[in-house]
Amino acid sequence: MPPSERAALIGAGHTRFGVLPDAPRTLIREAVDSAFASVDRGLERSQVGEAFLATLGFSGWQLGNSAALLAEEAGIPGVPVVRIENACASGGSALRAAVRTIESGSQEAVLVVGVEKMTDVSSRRRRYWLGVSGDTEWERLAGLTFAGVYALMAARHMHDYGTPIEALAQVAVKNHANGLLNPNAQFRKAVRVEDVLAAPRVADPLGLYDCCPVSDGASALLLVAESVARRYTDTPVRVVGAGAGSDHLAVHDRESLTSLHATQRAAAEAFRHAPFDRSKVQFAEVHDCFTIAEILALEDLGFAAPGEAAQMTLEGATARSGRFPVNPDGGLKSKGHPIGATGVSQAYEIFLQLRGAAGARQIPQAERALAHNVGGSGATATVALFERA
Amino acid sequence: MPPSERAALIGAGHTRFGVLPDAPRTLIREAVDSAFASVDRGLERSQVGEAFLATLGFSGWQLGNSAALLAEEAGIPGVPVVRIENACASGGSALRAAVRTIESGSQEAVLVVGVEKMTDVSSRRRRYWLGVSGDTEWERLAGLTFAGVYALMAARHMHDYGTPIEALAQVAVKNHANGLLNPNAQFRKAVRVEDVLAAPRVADPLGLYDCCPVSDGASALLLVAESVARRYTDTPVRVVGAGAGSDHLAVHDRESLTSLHATQRAAAEAFRHAPFDRSKVQFAEVHDCFTIAEILALEDLGFAAPGEAAQMTLEGATARSGRFPVNPDGGLKSKGHPIGATGVSQAYEIFLQLRGAAGARQIPQAERALAHNVGGSGATATVALFERA
Repeated sequence: MPPSERAALIGAGHTRFGVLPDAPRTLIREAVDSAFASVDRGLERSQVGEAFLATLGFSGWQLGNSAALLAEEAGIPGVPVVRIENACASGGSALRAAVRTIESGSQEAVLVVGVEKMTDVSSRRRRYWLGVSGDTEWERLAGLTFAGVYALMAARHMHDYGTPIEALAQVAVKNHANGLLNPNAQFRKAVRVEDVLAAPRVADPLGLYDCCPVSDGASALLLVAESVARRYTDTPVRVVGAGAGSDHLAVHDRESLTSLHATQRAAAEAFRHAPFDRSKVQFAEVHDCFTIAEILALEDLGFAAPGEAAQMTLEGATARSGRFPVNPDGGLKSKGHPIGATGVSQAYEIFLQLRGAAGARQIPQAERALAHNVGGSGATATVALFERA
Repeated sequence: MPPSERAALIGAGHTRFGVLPDAPRTLIREAVDSAFASVDRGLERSQVGEAFLATLGFSGWQLGNSAALLAEEAGIPGVPVVRIENACASGGSALRAAVRTIESGSQEAVLVVGVEKMTDVSSRRRRYWLGVSGDTEWERLAGLTFAGVYALMAARHMHDYGTPIEALAQVAVKNHANGLLNPNAQFRKAVRVEDVLAAPRVADPLGLYDCCPVSDGASALLLVAESVARRYTDTPVRVVGAGAGSDHLAVHDRESLTSLHATQRAAAEAFRHAPFDRSKVQFAEVHDCFTIAEILALEDLGFAAPGEAAQMTLEGATARSGRFPVNPDGGLKSKGHPIGATGVSQAYEIFLQLRGAAGARQIPQAERALAHNVGGSGATATVALFERA
């Protein structure tokens, strides 16, 4: 049974993503302020009944119990706040928790913020801090990195399906091209297939341009019960599905190296009570932490048959002007990947696109979209579905 | 408006609390197995639609993306899992998230697990790991510890209300007496007022017996929609309120040193749609991380007027045989405080008591109870209300 009340986005905010001088508190404040400013007919801060913070946390600022900090910086003192952490899927998980809260009828207006400050710690410290989001007992302590895990997936995908390395490169080329048009993107720089192929190898077959960067940044969403959304805007965006799934933490425990079951499970849940099916989704924000991850996502989400996402990419179908645009904001690859902010930022992009407010990167007649966020190497994942109201 | 569907507890599990040899995975598995075993008419693992993990995390095991690990160890592969972290209020926050999920109608059966492994890291490392849950920028880096923060609260409470130090000691004496009857408690040892007063000072006026210990342990809850609860047991326990609140992270930013506004806010939300008021609550599990915290909790929750919880304690009203028992399981003080497990363990105790299954520490005719969980030094808090169905 679909929920009796749905959640709708009425505002969204974003900082720049990149190597930023700002403290986490400042990033949170900037994202929240811009979210409130984006609401057409003022939602007061005092109307926000609950808030959700997505962050991997700590970094050099050593901030714990950090949800409380969100209440302070958002100017919503005293309200219930909670930190949601599912590694790189923290943002999507926080959005889903917020949606459930509105669907439960317990709150009419909620705030979701994702934030990460990553560039203020040494790379040695960061390697530990990020690395523990994969399997530690059998993989990390044996030397396997995240790039290494995704390289295994890429190599196996190439072996099983004949996926050409040029298709991976094309994911990077396309997402860099999209990032060029996004003022918040970390990299606003075009790259060519030959640049991607010639870049230093990080974990063969993945090179430097196959990997998303380390980033600072924040994003924020304001959601209300759909039944009251038009008080605040004539163009709310409905959240019509919010699914999640999980899988073994260690890649060697999983059934497949060429698909993420957590993504498949999350999509199945998201579509269960949605008013449309996969064929009606017009564009998607997917979790391209490495180029191979976008290929896997297209197949696991059912937008391409297994082994066919490479061809779809090479044909240009996923380009901004293609038949099924993917990552029009540049994706993690070019926009950047401040861990906790990523899943929230995906919804921000969809909010802009479905309201026709995405400027130079606007997708024409965008009405229905999907966001896909992955935690670690695929042990957790979320999928959310959006529709112009 | 009260929710159209309520959540009900149908099972609960618990490990011993204390200095344990077990790994976090083992603790999770033991708590979950005992929760499933406690269900009168078998709930299958495959019926659990979602799971919530409360943990401060990491410790020596360096486990990130840890919610995925819960799915593995609980034998519920693929289901949505999420980690909820609000410092020491993680357990209460996870319970509240689970309740909202059932109230939203999206799941019929959910699992909540709280776990912490604390004794496998050096005290220096642990001091950092726990300390960051307070304010770092202005308090921790200036040398203020958690015991120090609560000592400030105690000193101010004594100054404002004439609270005698014997009342703090009596909290410890009472909770140690209760812990004697709890086979899962870390300390099964009676203490006398003179022992508490003669113990080494940790942060004046708080001595060793005023402080809860460092503990390993886990607890688990199985919740279902109330409408189906009697399929699984004749004695479900309804969750009729689940509130939360927040406050400034730094104590010096708060309005008061003698009350936690986050607790007051959480209680107000919990009682908003509850079928009974404070006067009908028969006993409570409150967050006694330090003895003064139990005094503050009684006043903030409205069970004693400001300044009167000390007298209430000295009169024996909060003893297991008193008119309003508090922490019949021994509380954090004697049962132990494995951070993420604490808020879950409070609900475990209430589940036993309201079903008449608390053995030697059973409170007669227990029908309605409250659980209160605090994060950090009071920047977050949760309150939940329970009723025998």
